[in-house]
Amino acid sequence: MTEAFDAVDVIRAKRDGGTVAEDALRWMVDAYTRGYVSDAQMSSFAMAVLLNGMDRDEIRVMTDAMIASGERMSFAGLGKPTADKHSTGGVGDKITLPLAPLVAVFGVAVPQLSGRGLGHTGGTLDKLESIPGWRAALSNDELFAQLRDVGAVICAAGSGLAPADKKLYALRDVTGTVEAIPLIASSIMSKKIAEGTGALVLDVKFGSGAFMRDLDKARELARTMVALGEDSGVRTTALLTDMNTPLGLAIGNANEVRESVEVLAGGGPADIVELTVALAREMLALAGQPDADVEAALADGRAMDAWRRMIAAQGGDPDAALPVPRETQVVTASTSGVITRMEALPFGIAAWRLGAGRARAQDPVIHAAGIDLLVKPGDEVVAGQPVFTLSADDPARFARALEALDGAWEIGAEAPERTPLVRERITA
Amino acid sequence: MTEAFDAVDVIRAKRDGGTVAEDALRWMVDAYTRGYVSDAQMSSFAMAVLLNGMDRDEIRVMTDAMIASGERMSFAGLGKPTADKHSTGGVGDKITLPLAPLVAVFGVAVPQLSGRGLGHTGGTLDKLESIPGWRAALSNDELFAQLRDVGAVICAAGSGLAPADKKLYALRDVTGTVEAIPLIASSIMSKKIAEGTGALVLDVKFGSGAFMRDLDKARELARTMVALGEDSGVRTTALLTDMNTPLGLAIGNANEVRESVEVLAGGGPADIVELTVALAREMLALAGQPDADVEAALADGRAMDAWRRMIAAQGGDPDAALPVPRETQVVTASTSGVITRMEALPFGIAAWRLGAGRARAQDPVIHAAGIDLLVKPGDEVVAGQPVFTLSADDPARFARALEALDGAWEIGAEAPERTPLVRERITA
Repeated sequence: MTEAFDAVDVIRAKRDGGTVAEDALRWMVDAYTRGYVSDAQMSSFAMAVLLNGMDRDEIRVMTDAMIASGERMSFAGLGKPTADKHSTGGVGDKITLPLAPLVAVFGVAVPQLSGRGLGHTGGTLDKLESIPGWRAALSNDELFAQLRDVGAVICAAGSGLAPADKKLYALRDVTGTVEAIPLIASSIMSKKIAEGTGALVLDVKFGSGAFMRDLDKARELARTMVALGEDSGVRTTALLTDMNTPLGLAIGNANEVRESVEVLAGGGPADIVELTVALAREMLALAGQPDADVEAALADGRAMDAWRRMIAAQGGDPDAALPVPRETQVVTASTSGVITRMEALPFGIAAWRLGAGRARAQDPVIHAAGIDLLVKPGDEVVAGQPVFTLSADDPARFARALEALDGAWEIGAEAPERTPLVRERITA
Repeated sequence: MTEAFDAVDVIRAKRDGGTVAEDALRWMVDAYTRGYVSDAQMSSFAMAVLLNGMDRDEIRVMTDAMIASGERMSFAGLGKPTADKHSTGGVGDKITLPLAPLVAVFGVAVPQLSGRGLGHTGGTLDKLESIPGWRAALSNDELFAQLRDVGAVICAAGSGLAPADKKLYALRDVTGTVEAIPLIASSIMSKKIAEGTGALVLDVKFGSGAFMRDLDKARELARTMVALGEDSGVRTTALLTDMNTPLGLAIGNANEVRESVEVLAGGGPADIVELTVALAREMLALAGQPDADVEAALADGRAMDAWRRMIAAQGGDPDAALPVPRETQVVTASTSGVITRMEALPFGIAAWRLGAGRARAQDPVIHAAGIDLLVKPGDEVVAGQPVFTLSADDPARFARALEALDGAWEIGAEAPERTPLVRERITA
């Protein structure tokens, strides 16, 4: 067929610092999805976007073109509001697990379409698959019915949403163009907008364990995505949250489910409770319930009831024993003092090396592998006291995990300064 | 095999404004040639180079890596100095034809490895193939023998020189990354350095018919290439020359040979003579003969003798009739006045559309097709006077050629300001 545009012209426009016209940009995404624009052409375009940026209109059009490459879901027939959460990924980030049922308590449906982990960041589906019987794959009808009857769903995103994004992301991954903020924003938001949620809360992380190390870059990404949500008719708020230290005490899969259940039982680590409550409030505010008493729903068992129904609806047994590790190794304090630092990234890498994560998309994860922290920064320890426990199916994995952890944590004389977990809130 | 480097790391280094380490850059070029680094990876790298530049050392290493991908010739055994010329390409640029034999008159060997035309710029080999019997392909032994015995050779560059450049150029052409000065410089110079010339004069053109429209960009390219030549042991000088107006009166193939022979016979258009003489002086100066009387060699027939020997050595008959066009169309002046402007680019495009050039590498050219200018800017004309003649094998081609020429030339009241043909000289 004769093409209406020429990829080289589109690339040149962005390369030379101009804006790409709406019809040309839509064509570029569509032609790439069809295979008419080559990987080499799209990758030089992506590099030009990374270095020269995109304006708000271009980002909206790019996102819309990726949405148009696939199916678009709608929860309009559900009869209740919907709200979703997206995290840019961190270490020990199991917030989705307690959050989805907690929000559902208030009659707001949570269609949490999730992914699997790759590299040092864990995947929500991998964590839930620790629960015997639980299955991630739902048909659209099952998803809709569960949202109607239970209110919360955490399941695998179907391949029908924004297939252009899948192709483009795989390309960016091997061509040094992952870090382009317009492309990150359109990648995340195309799937969330196609999914059809009415409201969206973004947990944009910064710090050593986050994709964005730098607060300024995280803020730019958050602002870009909030603007994009608004431009696309999805009420969107973002929280900028600290990812320098692992979230909670558990890093892995089964242990993160255990910790989530503690939170749903009214306990759990303070940081996990704080972030779960903060995100639930934002989701509920966007869904029209700014005054919902989310703490009460954790304290009185309603959130736990919703969790049990959610797990059971997907074949899981909420009372079943979770997998336990075959091998453990305890790491102790060499001196007495206070924990001054635990770097999220090396702890994430160590858990990955223990088998909690995967290096290739087709690899399995070991559900019982991971790290359990026994103390956190600010806690005092005495020499010989256990600091954390490594778990794996094979003791041969401990050496490389410990290598990653070398220099990753410290005992000092003075407690570190406390910084807020939720640093900023970005609204439209 | 296990690779020593990771393409994504190399791309990121350049993307983030850093310099790429010598061993990493050599690996990148080599791995791309081997197919281990993909087209998509090389194209995002090329875009990063285009937007962030390369320093002098990087350009030298990049060029050296491309040379290392193929064979390297040497004329050390020839017993005489060698000098070559490279033009960045223009409209009516047949200077190589009179230049090579002219320089050879003075005992300097000219190994002019040339290419074919693509798009609106003509190719030296296409022009010479107008001569019955002449052949462009020589073996290395034939090339060496002709340099020794005749002194001047214009022949096809073998595919063994810098094959990495060939692959990279084809990629840049479709990914909007042609215009990167470090990549243009390394592309041109890798072939010239691999060819083994001792001295090199660059004719870097600027203006509407040139690859570089802008004088500043042309100067930057010239300086980059002169530095690169010096860093690689090739004495290099560049002239920045005006390519806003076609060179000479003939644009095509056979007609450009005719015009070249006029120059070799001591006549020919003033601009062709001026540029031929200027470039010959530079080549001879670099080869140790700054005082050579090149005008005398044109006037007394020595250059013509060298031309006849050069053509005959490659099977051509210097006395044979050249192809004549089947169809011609004369364009006349609609009013009286002075020619104020003739834009090189549209005249080049018109000649191409008449059949003098090709759109795809495998297409043939029509040797008798092209344009003959009858006047040039500054010349007075009266209404009805012929201004130029179009030639083609098929009269159906005239309409699209005339379309390209619409607005490309002008008759006014006052003669245009005269600007020098050779604008600047760049030396190491």
